[in-house]
Amino acid sequence: MSAAEQTPGGEDVTWGEVAPEAARRLLVAAVEAFAERGYHATTTRDIAGRAGMSPAALYIHYKTKEELLHRISRIGHDRALEILRAAELRDGAPADRLADAVRSFVRWHAERHTTARVVQYELDALGPEHRAEIVELRRETEATVRRIIEEGVAAGEFDVADPAGTTVAVLSLCIDVARWFNAQGRRTPDEVGAFYADLVLRMVGYRAQK
Amino acid sequence: MSAAEQTPGGEDVTWGEVAPEAARRLLVAAVEAFAERGYHATTTRDIAGRAGMSPAALYIHYKTKEELLHRISRIGHDRALEILRAAELRDGAPADRLADAVRSFVRWHAERHTTARVVQYELDALGPEHRAEIVELRRETEATVRRIIEEGVAAGEFDVADPAGTTVAVLSLCIDVARWFNAQGRRTPDEVGAFYADLVLRMVGYRAQK
Repeated sequence: MSAAEQTPGGEDVTWGEVAPEAARRLLVAAVEAFAERGYHATTTRDIAGRAGMSPAALYIHYKTKEELLHRISRIGHDRALEILRAAELRDGAPADRLADAVRSFVRWHAERHTTARVVQYELDALGPEHRAEIVELRRETEATVRRIIEEGVAAGEFDVADPAGTTVAVLSLCIDVARWFNAQGRRTPDEVGAFYADLVLRMVGYRAQK
Repeated sequence: MSAAEQTPGGEDVTWGEVAPEAARRLLVAAVEAFAERGYHATTTRDIAGRAGMSPAALYIHYKTKEELLHRISRIGHDRALEILRAAELRDGAPADRLADAVRSFVRWHAERHTTARVVQYELDALGPEHRAEIVELRRETEATVRRIIEEGVAAGEFDVADPAGTTVAVLSLCIDVARWFNAQGRRTPDEVGAFYADLVLRMVGYRAQK
């Protein structure tokens, strides 16, 4: 995990719910290893080694490498959905809520780009049940954004011929920030988030209501 | 390589320049293997096996696994740049040329999604010299799209405050099609291309000139 993925104090909030501390340390090590070498090229021995633990100690917390990937993917997808739901449920016009959703979702993908890449690119490595569970979370994520867009259309704020297709494109634009974002680049996660909120309002044909 | 990545006749046009046929067969096998298991989890023995050849026969054409990845990445990036240059240099207003660029670029990423994923996600696995060469091609790709956008701004067709940032977002939107595109999905590569051309004209604030 890069320095950019830590809070200024160095504490990693993404994995805050993972206890005990050894289990959390292993998860952070797994994200690093999967991001660097890919899921299939990483062994549980590599992960234990990175966490400064023995393979036997890893086994106490995770029975398989797939269990580690599932835990990472689950936490990542839960967090993404939580961010979008918060934006959906706040007060305000659809345009404000859509802009808010995009800003926070992009910020997360920029700040946590290493985690987000693992979550997005290693989906096929999950076992069938875990994969089905994550696919369902992704469906809910999509439905959340689609509802905001449809509300905007109903309110006459947005001009969108295909809400489903536009939802896929908006989420895709935001998710791909994890691929290209560079912590040494010219924009901060906040700045990319604000810029993308404007672009997305253009994509939905936003017109301020009189 | 999936069936969707073949022409209707089954011939693979992407690798047409690769000769002899054995070298081409190895490249196609390498794309499949890297896409399924990741670069680091794939051995030259795996690739030779998929191509129905011996490791010694592979070695005649490619000295290392990295050489295979570089060849794939180079061909993919050359093709992407070629597509965008053709759109830049054709006749027509900036809006027509930008729409054309997006349509062809998206179609390529949808049709060749397996190749595009390898090209995009395994960039870090290239050696330093090969990586620098590909980074330079990506810079040219970005510069091509940026020139079309700047021409549109100069002509008063587009309303873009930050051409560099908008260029990154437009290319990112198109490239990420390779991640989510599903040959069994509801839209064909052509349909996604046309839909995305409209979205991108919205992103650049296109207004038809009187």
